[in-house]
Amino acid sequence: MTTSRRDLTTPGSWGQTSQDYAFRPIGFVKSPFRQKHGVPRQSTMASQVKGEIWLDPGFPDLGLNALRRIEGFSHLWIVFVFHEHGGKKWKPSIRPPRLGGREKVGVLASRSPHRPNPIGISAVEFHGLIECDGKIGLKVSGLDLLDGTPVLDIKPYLPYADSIPEASSGWASAQIPIFPVQWDPSALDQFADIAKKTAHGDVLGLKELINEVISQDPRPGFQKREHPVQAPESEGLSYGICVGSIEVKFQIQNGGWLILSVWSAAE
Amino acid sequence: MTTSRRDLTTPGSWGQTSQDYAFRPIGFVKSPFRQKHGVPRQSTMASQVKGEIWLDPGFPDLGLNALRRIEGFSHLWIVFVFHEHGGKKWKPSIRPPRLGGREKVGVLASRSPHRPNPIGISAVEFHGLIECDGKIGLKVSGLDLLDGTPVLDIKPYLPYADSIPEASSGWASAQIPIFPVQWDPSALDQFADIAKKTAHGDVLGLKELINEVISQDPRPGFQKREHPVQAPESEGLSYGICVGSIEVKFQIQNGGWLILSVWSAAE
Repeated sequence: MTTSRRDLTTPGSWGQTSQDYAFRPIGFVKSPFRQKHGVPRQSTMASQVKGEIWLDPGFPDLGLNALRRIEGFSHLWIVFVFHEHGGKKWKPSIRPPRLGGREKVGVLASRSPHRPNPIGISAVEFHGLIECDGKIGLKVSGLDLLDGTPVLDIKPYLPYADSIPEASSGWASAQIPIFPVQWDPSALDQFADIAKKTAHGDVLGLKELINEVISQDPRPGFQKREHPVQAPESEGLSYGICVGSIEVKFQIQNGGWLILSVWSAAE
Repeated sequence: MTTSRRDLTTPGSWGQTSQDYAFRPIGFVKSPFRQKHGVPRQSTMASQVKGEIWLDPGFPDLGLNALRRIEGFSHLWIVFVFHEHGGKKWKPSIRPPRLGGREKVGVLASRSPHRPNPIGISAVEFHGLIECDGKIGLKVSGLDLLDGTPVLDIKPYLPYADSIPEASSGWASAQIPIFPVQWDPSALDQFADIAKKTAHGDVLGLKELINEVISQDPRPGFQKREHPVQAPESEGLSYGICVGSIEVKFQIQNGGWLILSVWSAAE
């Protein structure tokens, strides 16, 4: 028998062609994040973030049957498209914020959204199914995804295959700096007002979410490099960001953040 | 300001269209598995399986730069296409082998390859880069993928985001039955012969791999259901499978497996 043996030690002896694969989203993310700079890095660090995955009712044959016995799983993988980055060309190496934007790492040695194929994976906590107007959704938390993110797949998290606590995380083991966040009393009053008028302030835990997002310094990389929170000369600089439907103004103060004002963009 | 507010509690108020996304493989898997029934279920259970991921030299801009500082990571995610299943239509529910092929679970509550979008994720151990003929490869182990599998993405495994040891695994917490494997003395002689003549027998740890694959009962679901290993009436039934370039004949004996013969398909 002489067929089908392929050399096991050198590459390129098999004949794959670079065929493209096309995928259609099975659903979309609903999350409080509308702009990418406010999204916490890596889902389990965004424990406060609650969101939903809604299946596309137009996807053929996709219904409750496809989710049978999913309730037994505490965590799920969301396989998604970094859709906000589709137009932008990826580069072989990037400067991750975690390394202060100074050092280069390869894009495949990072979780950057600007990848050769802009596919992401995110482990989220699962809180049950919802049905509404004949549509099916999954309630999740620990969500680090933008609102409207196209979802390609949902898979159960299997700890015996997916959990490797002893894995070493290379350059990514550098700590993300966390800065203290304080609220100006007037901002606290504004938030109390918003929470009174609208239901979703409490439902989504927006206050904790605002604290979490701001503490991780949500500014774009160039601003972080030019005006570090720790630098005395950055004192007093102020910024704005949307967290859910809340617009937040915040300022550098004493090497941390002071929240100056919050208001609901819905008003 | 009345624009851009979207209701946070009901779905469907955002306007996604079901746009397709096309991805081109960045590389391909080289593994000893040529047929799907011999592939162990979930990579960390296939600890013995060594393989390689080779980057496609034709993929624009993809080179060593894209892998800079990847050496610091002990584990990687491989995002791949279940290419052997492309033609087969997925079904909303499946009967997983782990439940004896009797009970139905939703496809999104399973890791079945027959999915709405046939994308898989697999955590593998990383053993360093290789270069050969100007091509770049990654040595990995714990590989549960077929030879030739198209790879869409490689990502570092980040334990602080990806490792959730306390996750509950629903129906999948049922144990995969493991059956004892014995070797007929003549099969042991044959294997020693093969290992003497060819280098790759030792390199790939094929003997341990054969034991691991056979112990998990690599037969298709219908054969498992009709002829359980434990059933006295199955005694003496024999089967064949390819593990790497080794063809293995094995038989049910005393509620376990007896390896009858091994021979190299390369000879």
